[in-house]
Amino acid sequence: MTTRGRGTYDLTAQVQSAVRASDIDIGMCNVFIRHTSASLMLCENADPAVLRDLETFMSRLAPDGDPANTHTAEGPDDMPAHIRSVLTHADLNLPVRQGRCDLGTWQGVYLWEHRQRGHERKVTVTVTG
Amino acid sequence: MTTRGRGTYDLTAQVQSAVRASDIDIGMCNVFIRHTSASLMLCENADPAVLRDLETFMSRLAPDGDPANTHTAEGPDDMPAHIRSVLTHADLNLPVRQGRCDLGTWQGVYLWEHRQRGHERKVTVTVTG
Amino acid sequence: MTTRGRGTYDLTAQVQSAVRASDIDIGMCNVFIRHTSASLMLCENADPAVLRDLETFMSRLAPDGDPANTHTAEGPDDMPAHIRSVLTHADLNLPVRQGRCDLGTWQGVYLWEHRQRGHERKVTVTVTG
Repeated sequence: MTTRGRGTYDLTAQVQSAVRASDIDIGMCNVFIRHTSASLMLCENADPAVLRDLETFMSRLAPDGDPANTHTAEGPDDMPAHIRSVLTHADLNLPVRQGRCDLGTWQGVYLWEHRQRGHERKVTVTVTG
Repeated sequence: MTTRGRGTYDLTAQVQSAVRASDIDIGMCNVFIRHTSASLMLCENADPAVLRDLETFMSRLAPDGDPANTHTAEGPDDMPAHIRSVLTHADLNLPVRQGRCDLGTWQGVYLWEHRQRGHERKVTVTVTG
Repeated sequence: MTTRGRGTYDLTAQVQSAVRASDIDIGMCNVFIRHTSASLMLCENADPAVLRDLETFMSRLAPDGDPANTHTAEGPDDMPAHIRSVLTHADLNLPVRQGRCDLGTWQGVYLWEHRQRGHERKVTVTVTG
């Protein structure tokens, strides 16, 4: 997918659709992002304020332009993007039951773009069972 | 399980028992929590001070009542619980050997309740192989 | 493997070699570390400054000798090593395609030793499919 810059993007429907297409009833679903400056997470899917507050938290924990960073070739948001990725997840492994990821009611699958500008991001879904 | 409020709960015996019941000798065990305000982790299982110090660390990193949080509908510990969950794990994927999760000597599987009050928490165990 | 103290160690070639040896063309690869004071991560593999900056970040987030820590039996880097491990990963789950882990171009698999002194660290690779 192509992101429009820093922020979260809900992938839940696309992941559930990939599981349906696999025709696997019970097993596991791996969601994997092939990047180190964007990541994946499961997060509360009802109140958009949760996602905004997470963004605020990370901006404070790993601020853009932090003078402690020496890897700055691609800009002040480059190293913070790697830090945020390591602190969250490149892979999510979700149990499949009755042909769908058996998430909790309030759980959504999100891609988190950590770079300020939009990027083309590759996510693979592997369903086994 | 029903938690008694913020803190850690050792699930290792229950996970090992689920693996035994599956009769799978070699493969993988996925432990998954269907919530976004409680999480899972592998942690040192010998000295309870480790778990207390982790609690102290998280309370400092994502303090209850942080004025930066706008998602406060359920109280001052609501957003910190989501932050703590994203920073730890909703899924653990443990290799199975000889019919059990092949953990290190000092590794235990813990549920971490991040809300102040107790909650009913659903954890699923999926064994494949 | 035996580490030479705090720092990162590239395991990518060894993991890919284990996948090749499994003769599995499509499936999943689980990399698991059987310790709670060293961890795994996927990280940018081109500029060593990224790994140094991550080290700096973690040293600031969970500093050695933090007086808040009570679990100090093994030294001032003991509890910080547990904190760093919980914030990163004990398991990585990588999709296998055409007989290899289908990583992004800039993704490498790293072991992160969090203790100051070197340790013998056991990592298992499980390939299924």
